[in-house]
Amino acid sequence: MAEEVVLLDFWPSPFGMRVRVALAEKGIKYEYKEEDLRNKSALLLQMNPVHKKIPVLIHNGKPVCESLVQVQYIDEVWHHTSPLLPSHSYQRAIARFWADFVDKKIYGELGRKIWTSKGEEQETAKKEFIESLKLLEGELGDKPYFGGENLGYVDVVLVPFYSWFYAYEKCGNFSIEAECPKLIAWAKRCLEKESVSKSLPDQEKVYHFVLQLKKLLGIE
Amino acid sequence: MAEEVVLLDFWPSPFGMRVRVALAEKGIKYEYKEEDLRNKSALLLQMNPVHKKIPVLIHNGKPVCESLVQVQYIDEVWHHTSPLLPSHSYQRAIARFWADFVDKKIYGELGRKIWTSKGEEQETAKKEFIESLKLLEGELGDKPYFGGENLGYVDVVLVPFYSWFYAYEKCGNFSIEAECPKLIAWAKRCLEKESVSKSLPDQEKVYHFVLQLKKLLGIE
Repeated sequence: MAEEVVLLDFWPSPFGMRVRVALAEKGIKYEYKEEDLRNKSALLLQMNPVHKKIPVLIHNGKPVCESLVQVQYIDEVWHHTSPLLPSHSYQRAIARFWADFVDKKIYGELGRKIWTSKGEEQETAKKEFIESLKLLEGELGDKPYFGGENLGYVDVVLVPFYSWFYAYEKCGNFSIEAECPKLIAWAKRCLEKESVSKSLPDQEKVYHFVLQLKKLLGIE
Repeated sequence: MAEEVVLLDFWPSPFGMRVRVALAEKGIKYEYKEEDLRNKSALLLQMNPVHKKIPVLIHNGKPVCESLVQVQYIDEVWHHTSPLLPSHSYQRAIARFWADFVDKKIYGELGRKIWTSKGEEQETAKKEFIESLKLLEGELGDKPYFGGENLGYVDVVLVPFYSWFYAYEKCGNFSIEAECPKLIAWAKRCLEKESVSKSLPDQEKVYHFVLQLKKLLGIE
């Protein structure tokens, strides 16, 4: 059976980028459908009735939602090419732990606060953001990628946020590279791969999107 | 090699209960160590330096953290007895989606709000909580368990919250059973299994714990 893969996505979404990178790593051809989040398509509402959010991966007509679930699904279905999760259970648990850490800290608690808050709240968010990245640097250690010699699950999960770093830096008036040079070197190493560079938008473009978003939300 | 399994836990934790249920379903013997969260043990801080939270599963000296990661790890390592995750990738993705839903909605956004807020905020939380449970009822359908004929991943992930339902009901002055009879029937079905009944504390005991917690947090 010919595989039919469709991705409902929105270009600045780090969650969408994860799926794009995973699909590209596996060499899977798919149809990309850009969503207008202020006017969601009937297909999006039908395929993700619970959260009504992108990204939605539609594989042979059946939807898979939530980016960590999607990346794991892609890795399981197309397990012969470029495995993302480690083959050993304990290493898999460690990879899942760090993926969860990225969702909770980098995006959930801190990333958003950097560009939506000011003053002391912003300073605290920046401090904790850098601390979280340093923990990730510790986990990376001397390996070229979190996955070891090759791009793995944690790399796919984390690298999309690099496209948001410039926006964080401009909005928060700080330098991530000055604090976490090893992590930035890692991100640049990832970007040398076409699967990553073709899936991530330009940092400037994301920054302009964030500026528009701030205006829309009434944040100075 | 003899398996050495230790669980650092705190009795009212629904996350700890998940691990207890999973270990019991698999028939794994383990040493249970109750933590005093106001005076965390050196072992806890050493084994979970990132989050410093329970539960921590220590398998042959090596820690696994975060309950969803732990339950998947247990299922993968002891895969011969009582499989929890479905064997088919798509069904596995669906199970992971609902487990994530439980973490985000039942615990994260809503459950806590029911007993920490009042007035309109509490009413909204109660309404959304019931809506979330109804979505779960829809996913359960006519199956005895989310896992089908046997207890599965979503059952293990969700059932611990049943021990908190009475506290939610008393604090929120509403009846979950009146709104979601199918879900309560499911929870009672789960509790007929010794793996569940032995792993969950009594609802009254959790309610008294919540009352103490409210006092400690200065919530009337």
